[in-house]
Formats: sequence, structure tokens, C-alpha cells
Amino acid sequence: MLKNKHILDPWSIIENKFDSSKMIDSESIFSLGNGKIGQRGNFEEDFSGNQSIGNYISGIYYKDKTKVGWWKKGYPDYFAKMVNCPNWNTIRIEINNNVLDLNKCKVYSYKRELNMKEGWCERNVELETPNKEKIQIISKKFISLKRENIGVIQYSLKPLNKKIKIKILPAINIDVKNNDANWNQPFLETTKVKSNNNYSIVKSKVINSNFEIATFIKTKYFINSISVQSRFSENKNENLIGSQSEFDLNPENKLTLLKIGGYVNSNDTVKDEFENLINKELISSMDLGFDGLLKENSKAWENIWNDSDIIINGDVFSQQAVRFNIFQLNQTFNGNDPKLNIGPKGFTGEKYGGVTYWDTEAYCIPFYLGTKNSIVSKNLLLQRYNQLPNAILNAEKIGLNHGAALYPMVTANGEECHNEWEITFEEIHRNAAIVQAIKKYVNFTDDFDFINKKAVKILIAISRFWSQRVNFSKELNKYVILGVTGPNEYENNVDNNWYTNYSARWCLQYTIEVLNKISESEINTYNKITLETSLEKDEIKKWNEIIEGIYLPFSKELGVFIQNDGFLNKDLIPAISIPENERPINQNWSWDKILRSPYIKQADVLQGFYFFDDDFDDDEHISNFNYYEQFTVHESSLSACIHSILASKINDLDKAYEYFIRASRLDLDDYNKEIKQGLHITSMGGTWMSVVEGFAGLRVKNNEIHFNTKIPKKWDSYSFKVNVKNRKLSIKIDKNTTTVSLLEGEPINVIINGLKTQLKK
Amino acid sequence: MLKNKHILDPWSIIENKFDSSKMIDSESIFSLGNGKIGQRGNFEEDFSGNQSIGNYISGIYYKDKTKVGWWKKGYPDYFAKMVNCPNWNTIRIEINNNVLDLNKCKVYSYKRELNMKEGWCERNVELETPNKEKIQIISKKFISLKRENIGVIQYSLKPLNKKIKIKILPAINIDVKNNDANWNQPFLETTKVKSNNNYSIVKSKVINSNFEIATFIKTKYFINSISVQSRFSENKNENLIGSQSEFDLNPENKLTLLKIGGYVNSNDTVKDEFENLINKELISSMDLGFDGLLKENSKAWENIWNDSDIIINGDVFSQQAVRFNIFQLNQTFNGNDPKLNIGPKGFTGEKYGGVTYWDTEAYCIPFYLGTKNSIVSKNLLLQRYNQLPNAILNAEKIGLNHGAALYPMVTANGEECHNEWEITFEEIHRNAAIVQAIKKYVNFTDDFDFINKKAVKILIAISRFWSQRVNFSKELNKYVILGVTGPNEYENNVDNNWYTNYSARWCLQYTIEVLNKISESEINTYNKITLETSLEKDEIKKWNEIIEGIYLPFSKELGVFIQNDGFLNKDLIPAISIPENERPINQNWSWDKILRSPYIKQADVLQGFYFFDDDFDDDEHISNFNYYEQFTVHESSLSACIHSILASKINDLDKAYEYFIRASRLDLDDYNKEIKQGLHITSMGGTWMSVVEGFAGLRVKNNEIHFNTKIPKKWDSYSFKVNVKNRKLSIKIDKNTTTVSLLEGEPINVIINGLKTQLKK
Repeated sequence: MLKNKHILDPWSIIENKFDSSKMIDSESIFSLGNGKIGQRGNFEEDFSGNQSIGNYISGIYYKDKTKVGWWKKGYPDYFAKMVNCPNWNTIRIEINNNVLDLNKCKVYSYKRELNMKEGWCERNVELETPNKEKIQIISKKFISLKRENIGVIQYSLKPLNKKIKIKILPAINIDVKNNDANWNQPFLETTKVKSNNNYSIVKSKVINSNFEIATFIKTKYFINSISVQSRFSENKNENLIGSQSEFDLNPENKLTLLKIGGYVNSNDTVKDEFENLINKELISSMDLGFDGLLKENSKAWENIWNDSDIIINGDVFSQQAVRFNIFQLNQTFNGNDPKLNIGPKGFTGEKYGGVTYWDTEAYCIPFYLGTKNSIVSKNLLLQRYNQLPNAILNAEKIGLNHGAALYPMVTANGEECHNEWEITFEEIHRNAAIVQAIKKYVNFTDDFDFINKKAVKILIAISRFWSQRVNFSKELNKYVILGVTGPNEYENNVDNNWYTNYSARWCLQYTIEVLNKISESEINTYNKITLETSLEKDEIKKWNEIIEGIYLPFSKELGVFIQNDGFLNKDLIPAISIPENERPINQNWSWDKILRSPYIKQADVLQGFYFFDDDFDDDEHISNFNYYEQFTVHESSLSACIHSILASKINDLDKAYEYFIRASRLDLDDYNKEIKQGLHITSMGGTWMSVVEGFAGLRVKNNEIHFNTKIPKKWDSYSFKVNVKNRKLSIKIDKNTTTVSLLEGEPINVIINGLKTQLKK
Repeated sequence: MLKNKHILDPWSIIENKFDSSKMIDSESIFSLGNGKIGQRGNFEEDFSGNQSIGNYISGIYYKDKTKVGWWKKGYPDYFAKMVNCPNWNTIRIEINNNVLDLNKCKVYSYKRELNMKEGWCERNVELETPNKEKIQIISKKFISLKRENIGVIQYSLKPLNKKIKIKILPAINIDVKNNDANWNQPFLETTKVKSNNNYSIVKSKVINSNFEIATFIKTKYFINSISVQSRFSENKNENLIGSQSEFDLNPENKLTLLKIGGYVNSNDTVKDEFENLINKELISSMDLGFDGLLKENSKAWENIWNDSDIIINGDVFSQQAVRFNIFQLNQTFNGNDPKLNIGPKGFTGEKYGGVTYWDTEAYCIPFYLGTKNSIVSKNLLLQRYNQLPNAILNAEKIGLNHGAALYPMVTANGEECHNEWEITFEEIHRNAAIVQAIKKYVNFTDDFDFINKKAVKILIAISRFWSQRVNFSKELNKYVILGVTGPNEYENNVDNNWYTNYSARWCLQYTIEVLNKISESEINTYNKITLETSLEKDEIKKWNEIIEGIYLPFSKELGVFIQNDGFLNKDLIPAISIPENERPINQNWSWDKILRSPYIKQADVLQGFYFFDDDFDDDEHISNFNYYEQFTVHESSLSACIHSILASKINDLDKAYEYFIRASRLDLDDYNKEIKQGLHITSMGGTWMSVVEGFAGLRVKNNEIHFNTKIPKKWDSYSFKVNVKNRKLSIKIDKNTTTVSLLEGEPINVIINGLKTQLKK
């Protein structure tokens, strides 16, 4: 199963073989971003093989008209999709009047390295053209963490065996389109194009929206590292915006192009200021030069690693993978802009539209809480708070009322985007993930002001949702939740999904607990909240009835909770019996066959054991884990991390390690055969969780910080830092010892493997 | 609920008010057809209001590329849709150089009559134009039953108050498109256009297929009934193919246009012969003239009515409705062409593509069996027989093998067209409807040759389907069928739909019964069949195990079968509580709300009580009917007829009558607010069934013909004929007496209300 597709290195991802048939896969892996803008790992020069050009700006999306075979009432009008922007990355090369195209050359030496420590990507190629010119190309680039609007390319070309005439056209390519457009329509229209020697700008407008962007480039040439003035000739290609220059190069002479490019957009800057801002960016960047820009970028990455690195000694396979995950999370989202969020594929692919899912709350917020200032997670939750009115409208669409809220499955601005009834209307457990994140945030930060004044309104609205969404079954004499899809999307429209029912009960309990606390500590706040939300005592009474009476399917015989009604009627053959050539089943089986099988896409009952782990004793953990694991096919990226954490919990460290590897190397080794669609960014938070919550066993329970530490056989030691309770802790775990130090903040009690210690600086 | 939208008349549908806002509704009602070609009731002249032009040829379809939001493995590539053809119906009128448009005129007298007895439609209008010209128009038309390629229009125009100059352009309008095209693309391309004075022809090709058609018209003018030669002028409108003529008319002088038009197509005629065939058709038709053509058409309808009429005395409301249903069935399908089938909306609308559903077997074959030569039903079943290889491929798509067959939900040529997983893959009960039709066919006809040599292969393939589609539940110690959609499509992906499980068992039982009979009577045939189908004894053993062990959900407490697992957990509030403004719920509720409600779209458990009525005693009939009826919203056209038949069965004749009216007047009175989409043709067989199987209680059981007759309060008497067992019977039922006579065939025993009588001619 496990295939190692890249060279092992603690800090870099390296491919040293050029395989033009795998171009799209590699483009995903070698993507670059800074949380604001990003791009797939496209070659700069022309490439006639299969490729997938992608440049994206977080928060800039197109409302793509819904495409559906059979309309259902309540479906949204559009799916928000981040826009594939003009490609500032393009450099067209002509060698002796022939366009350079790696797909048509003999590549005899090739190395591409993604250096995660310093945040750059370098490609070093030696090739022979069809006309026998031997050429070396070295391209090094990064998207600046320090300067959020720009990326930088240093592109060098050296003839190795002949004198050549080279024409070079660093350009903005405006012939780009979203690959996943519903109606094969463009998302952008070009409103203005300007090209003036070494500077070009393209202004564009997202169709049918107010979003406007400008794409820009500026260039500078060097020969053998000495700056040269080039003559610029007119460029006749109307899709490539830029100016062409021409050089004659003798063998072993090196032409170097510095190209700075990027985007400004109307979310940040008024349109009239676009060019001023660009000029300012370009002047200071050009002054600094490639080395200066690279240095400040490396410094910014150093700061990030200082806070968020997980150091693993003794197993470079794990080390490389965990860093790849942390690196990608930081490339995708930096928390600087309270309007932005985390798309499931970040800037690495268009699937899922680049907009917000429950992944943010369930799999990403723990990472950002642990490694960033708490304002980052707070901003993410504030987005949900600000979208509460839309979530209430969304619940009204499915017939609920009186302030009940259903958060969208997929959203850019609070409006639902998804259009499959079994997901849009039925995968309602997503509401609970938001409450989970609120609780985790408050536990980590003690920010009672946020929960008492704001988040409590989310809690009330979500509790209202559950209290209206249940119904009372006379047959069972219990409250039931009918017609849902759980986290395991390989069951649709089932009744009494245990995870959903359990989560619903917990949301009600937590809401009541928070309301009680507020009423005890801040009666004025409490009165204000109840007034603003028209909260009635009868509602809370009803919530308590549901808490008492909700149905939680359980098999005495098996000693496990039942995933959903009817699960035990299935043909319960473990997943190991599925032939390898039928995997993943979602690419090989018809949907009905998947649905009536017992196979589980991702943790479902076990997702509950992750969220509510303290509610269950060790025996329950073991029996439920063993029962459900055997049917789980992990065809969601969100599955392996939860299984790793739970395997740690039950002390099955070999299994925990196996799942950790599966989670952390999912993309590097392409287990699910879908890397061409982009990286699984949001699940990468799960890799961090597998280490910090899994092996190291971090739990924050009210005012206590617990570590229950374990270490996989293959590791000698591992260490990381974590922000919690306004402290920064450093944790180091080796085979025999766990050392926790307080780096910042007031003294605090920490319970390490059951022993309480007071930590001081 | 009941609104009478049309004037009551035993033989005609009459509207005597012109309401331009209801044009599309009326077009559906006044559709015409002859089983081969048909058209919606469009006005001939221009109409600037909302209208929906439609002309269709049975068996000519376009493969419309599948449109779906989220692709599932196994979805078909296309949906077959009958093509909206060039409109030969068009007559452009200019009065003193202004185009006549009823939407812009004052209509002060209006009557449109669909005369079902003779099969024509006449429209008589008196109007005043914006320029104060008063005009009378009388248009009378029919699609010829006798001449399957043509329709005939006699269009008269008379100025009432002023002398007018009239320009008249009888044309083929090629600017037509299918309204329900997935991608807004044309289905047809015009390959040739020819217009020569009073004759025009348009040849067209269905895009991406081999279907070719030709549309033609021929015209002749009369003034005050005297034939006139007109001068033809060039017509500059490139969408209207035809020649324009001009007349000056004094008040009270009448211009009459005879227009004959229609289609030939490549299913019947090689393309090179199109014009020869058209010429032949036109010469003999023109010779006969309007009156002659009308007369032969009336005669053909007389023959149809002679065989298929149901005469109801004392209740014109019922009489009109039942004839409307019989008339439409005969307009849609005549059984002359073994390649054709019955689209759910016939020629009256594009919804459902005009292709084949299980409706044919479950709701239409009984009617055609009872009123036509048995070859008609046999041909319909032969289509399924010929499509068995495709049905086997279709089952392979969902992972079954060894000759298991799943007939498509929707098909033109045996390939599945539908693309909703919960229907395409899960509404598998359709397989059983085909077996039902086979059994009914054999019962009615004693055609043992067909079942022994052909249909038995369908039975084996369908039994194989069921035996692979069940699984054994250790929990229940029973065979179960998981993940299905029953006839009630307001439940999706449910387990153990009672109707499906019961039907599956019955299919297995019937297959074994048939196989036993063949092996007893024709051992050579039996050996041939088992050889050709590789049927093993172990398979039959397995079938018997399933027959013994299948799970049939039942509630002892309620004394009813349970529609599907989990049904009793619902909020079981009767449908009467649904507010009127939320009906139909499928237009007002989100899908999840519908699914988790107890509301039933159409007979489901009760569909089983219809098909298997003899299996249950009177108490079971009463308890199940009463239980499920209260939750049923009848939002499928296929629901009311079954409820009528079952209400007759339990002697609730008021209810049976109410459902009969709902079934028979569904379209006339537009109960489901969807008449604009076209008429519910296939459900019209259910109206016939409501009388013949419902009130008259016809059952054919092996060699016995039973009538168990009842009569609704409002009826004085009713009578009909029926073909059965190679006899033609005539049945007359009044308040006190049932008279059954043998019109054709050998003497036979008939059991009338429990008394056995031998009938002789």
C-alpha cells in the first residue's frame, strides 16, 4: 500500500526524475502560497503535455450557476469557486526561434526541490532540444510571506554546447480558465491591459460580481549576474501580456531573469489605488532584489517553524511528512486577514471551490489554536458568528423556524453552495463541529467574553435547530433524528446516525451549561442574550427532554454503538476482502453498492469517540474502535488522523503510527489516487492532531492541561511547542521521558501522564 | 379540491373562454395524435403570449448528454428525448399588413372543442384587431388515424365588418427547440429546404444520431367553398418555410385554407424514398379532400370506440373523463408499430423525454390487453425481451453478474437514461412490474409459447437479480433488501421496502412455477432454456431459500405491513394536516422534509395489495388501506387509480368514486398544478383499470374469468367490452344486474359475483 514517491529529506520534497505523464500530480505537490495568493507548481515555460495551470487569490470567487440534473426545492443558485487568475508565472522561451517545450526535449538531468524550511521551490534541468542545443535551466521561486501580494522568480538559462539566440517573453497569460466550471464559461473578464517594457499589468473583473483584481509583473535581466539593459520588442500574442527581449548567448554564459509578479484585489484595496499599491510593492521589492527578498522570506518561515514545527528524530519518513503538512497549512492560511478561510485544497486545486467546509472547525482550528495567536481562531469563529443570519435563513429553507440555524455545508459568504440533497439538507452534523470548535477555543483561550456575548447566540440557534429537527418516535418512545447523512458519506438518508444524535444531545447540554454559567456570573449579559434571542424557558425545558430522551443506537451483543439504524442488517464482511483493483470503491462501485455495503468512508461513530473521548471508558474505546475500523476504507482524507488519535488512545501504537503515516503522507504518496485534483489541505490539521492530541495526548479540560504521552517505535524522540491558556509550552518526548517546559506566560499546573506538575519559566 | 375547468359533455372537451394566461395549459388538453405523430394544441397563427409549441414523432429521439451536479459511477451518458420537430401547423396571417396575433386582439367569442368521438379539434373565434377589423376564424383539424404520417387543417377566415387585404403564409416553422434540453442545444439540424408554391418540405437530421425526418405541407385555397388558384409570392422569413398568398376579402366572404402536413422518418422509410412517400400520401389525401379525410378518420375512431369505450349513464362528469383517458391512450399508441412504446406524456409535453418507464407494464398493458388485439401487448413485451442483453449489462453496472438483469428506469432502446442514484440504481421494483405484465399477458391470452420460449428468460434473469440483490441479515435471521426506493419516491434509499421485498419473493415464486410447468409439459424446451441460460439447480435452491426467508416488515400492533424499516419512527400525522398552501409538497418542501415525513407520493404497500390482492383477506385489505391512505398525498398520477380499485375491493364505493374522479379528471381539472407540462398519459390506463378491475372487479385467474361488480351511487349503469382468453365479452352493470355476454369466441365459464355461468354466443 505504502509507496514512497519522493526522496526522503527532513526539510525538502525532492523529485529527481522528469515524468511528463505525472506533470499534473507534481504540480499539486510543488504548489506555493502565502495564505493570500498561491499557485500550482506549473513550469514557467511552455509545456505541451497535460498540465493544469492554477493561480488563486483567497477570497476572490465566482458564483457559478448551479448545475444539477433534477432540481430540488431549496437548492442554492450558485457554487462559489475561487477564480483561476491570469498566470503571472509564464515565461515563454525561444531558442533559435523554436519555442522551448520540455515535453519535446530530452531531459537528461532534472531535480525539483520544495524547500519547506525557507519556503522556496527550485528546479534544475539540463536538456537537449530537438535541434541538439543543450541547455541548463535553473528556476527558483517563492511566494512572499512578508509581502502578501507578490511572488518572485529567478529564472536562469545557460547554453551548454552551442551559441544560441534566445528570445524571452516574461508574461501574464490571460488565456486561463477554471477547469471545474459548471458551464464551461469564463469566470473573469479582462478590463484593461497595459504593457510597458519591463512592466505589465492586467486588470480583470469577476463576472457577475463586484470582485476586481489586477495581475502585474516586473522584470530585470542579468548576464552572468551582471545587470543588463535589454531591448524590448513588441509582443504579438494577445494572450501573453508582456514584452519580449532577445539575447545572444555563448556556451556557459548565463542569462538570468528576475521576475516579480502577483495580484492586488478589491477585497483589500479600492480599485483606483491598484496601480499605486503595485508600484509601491514593486519599487521596494526590486530594490531588495532576489537575494534580499528570499532572505526576508526565509526569516518569516523561520518564525513560523519556530512556533509550529514538530521535530521527529529517528524517522525521516515521518519528519518529512509532518513538515509537509505544517508547511501546506501555513501556505494556505496565515490568519492575518479576518475575512479569509481555509479551502479544502488551498491554492493547489479547484475541487471543492476553495471555500469553507466543516473541515475548518473540526480539523484546522486545533492546529491554528496550538501554533498561532488565538486571534486567528477567533477570527475564523467570528466569520461563523457574522454568518448566523444566513444560517438561520438556511434552516428556514428546510422548514425550521424561530431562529434555528443550519450552517451551510459549503460556503463563501454564509450562503449554502452545495447541491446534493443528501448532503446539503441532510449532512447536518456539521452544526455540531462548529460548537466543538467554540468549546475548544474557549478551553484553550479562556476567552469568556467571546462565548458570553457572541458565540452563545450560535449555541442557542444550533440548539433550536436540533430541538426542531428531532421528532418523537412512539414506536421507540425516544426522540429520533431521521433522514441524515453522517460523517461517513457512504450512508445517505439514514435514521439515527449515532454520531449525529450524540452530537445533537451534546450541543444541547453544552448550550445549557454555558447559559447557566452566564446566568450565574453575568445576569445582565444573560438577560440581554435571552431578550435578543427571544429565548423562552419552555425551550430549555424541551432541550432537557430531548437530552433525556434521545435515542442512541447500541448493540448489547457487540458492545458497540450502532452507526445508524439498519447497519447490522448489512453483509458485514470486513473491508480487507475488497479486491485491490476495486479500490478506492468510490471510483469503482456504483453508489447503491457502496450504500448497501458496510464500508465506511471516514470515522463516523469513531468521530464521536474522538470528540467525546472522555465520555467513554477504555473498554468502550477498544470495542468500538475494533468494530468499526474493520469496515473503514478511509476514502476521505479526514479519516486516518482520527483513527491514529484513537489508536494512540487505546495504546495500539503500531496502528497509530500506520494511520499517522497514512494521514501525513496521503498526498506525498497519493494513497487515494487523486493527487491531480490538488492537496488535501484541511485534513493536514489532522496530522498535527495525530501527534499533539494522539501521541502526546494533549487535552485541555477546563483549567487543566493534560499530556498522556506515547511514542511510536520508529521514533527516537519528538518535540513541539503549543500555545494554550495564554502560555507557550515546549514538549519533548523520548522513549523514557516527557519534558514539558513553560516558555511564556504565568505558572500553570500541567498533568503529565497522570502526575501534576507546576510549570514556571 | 375538485374544480371543473371544462364544460361537461359526454363526447367533447370544450373551452368557451379565451384566457391567454392559460394558453400552455390548454395546449396540453387539446393535443392531437395518432400513435405515430402528434402535436400540442398550438394555435396556427402567431401568438405573442406564453405558448409551448410541440410536434413529436414516436421513436425519434435525441441523446441529450447527461447533466448532473455530482457524477456517480454508473450514470448513463445521455437521456433519450423525443425531438420537437419543425412545426407544420403554422399559418401566418396578415390583415391589412399587420400580423394577426390573438394575444393582441379583443376576442369576443371563443369556443374550442376536442371532439373525441370523431377525433378532431375545432376552434371558432370572433375577434377584433387593434385596427378594428372584426374577423371570424374557424380552424378544424385532426391527425389522421388512417394515414399515420399526416394531419389535416381546414382554416377559414371571414371579415365581419370591413373589406380586408389578407396575406396568408401556411408554413413549416423550423425555429423550434426542445424546451427541456439539458444544454440549451438544438436536437435537429436542417439538411434541406424546398418550397414550391403550394408544397414545401424540410429535411432534418437528429444531431449525433442516424435518425432523419422530413416535414412537409401542401395547401389549397377556397373562397366561399369554391376552389381558387392563388398567386404565390416569395417568403423572406428564413424560419417559415412556405409560400405566401394574398387575397382581398369583402365582409362575409370566407377564405378557406386546406393544409395537409406531417412527417416521414427514417425508422419507417429509407431516406431516399422520403419524397416519393410524401407525394403518394399527398396526392391521395388531396384527392379525398377535407371532408373525405375527416370521414375516414371518424370511421377509424368509431372502430376504436366500438372496442374500447366505457359507457357511463347518469354521470356526464365521469363519462367525459373516462372517454378523455381512453381517447388519449389511443392518440398516443396504437400498437401498429412493434418498435414504439408509450411515453409518460405522449405527444403532449416533453417532460420525461417521451420514452419508456415501468408505467407501460403496470398501468398501460392491462388497457391494451383488454381493448386491442393481444399482439399489441405482446409487442410491448417483446421490446423488453429484445432489450434483455442491455438489462443484463445494466445489472453489471451495479456489481451483479451471471445473467442478472435490471431493466432501466427510463429507456428508449434498452439503455438506462435516468441519472439520480436513488432512482436509477435503487428504484429496482420496476423489474417486478415487467414480470407482472408477463403474467397478466399470459393469463389473458394463454400464449404459453411466448412465456415458455421467450419470457421465461426474462423471468430467470430477474430472479437472478433478486437473488443477488438480497443479503442475509444475521441480526434478523432473514434475507433483506437494503437501499431501495419503492413506488413511493418520497422515501429514498430505505431498507426492506415491503412492496419490493414482497415483489421480489413473488418473482422468484412465479419463475419457479413457470419453470416447473415447462419441465412438466415440454422437457425439451426446458432443457434448451436451462442450457441457454446456464441455469443451475443450486440457483433454484437459493431462490427457494430466499422465498422462505425473506423479511416482510409487519406490525402486529397495527395489523399492517410496514412500508419500510423505520417508517413507524416518523411523526405519524395524517396528510390532512398539511396546509393547502403547502401542497403539492413536492413544490413547497425541501427534499429532506419530504423524506422524513410519513407522506406517501403514490401507492406503495397498497401497490402490492393491488398486484397481489388475492394473497390477502378482507381484514388485511381494510386495515392496510385505511392505514396508508391517511398518509398518501397522491402527488404521482399513478396513485389515485390504485386507491380507487382497492376502495372498490373493500366496498367503500364513495371513496372508490372519489379516487376514480381524481384519476380520470387529473388533467382536465389539473389537480397537481402541472398540466402545462403535458398530460399524464400512462396513468390514464389506470382510469380504465379503476372501472374494469375496480368497479367491475375483473380478474383472470388461470382459466377462470371473474367479475365482482359494483356501481358508484352517481351512476345509473355502465358498460364496456373486454378481450380476454381469445374471447370478446360485453359487460353491462346497472344498480341491480350484471349482464355479461360473449360477443366473439368459444363458450367459456365466467364467475359473476360468485356465480358460475357458461357463456355462449
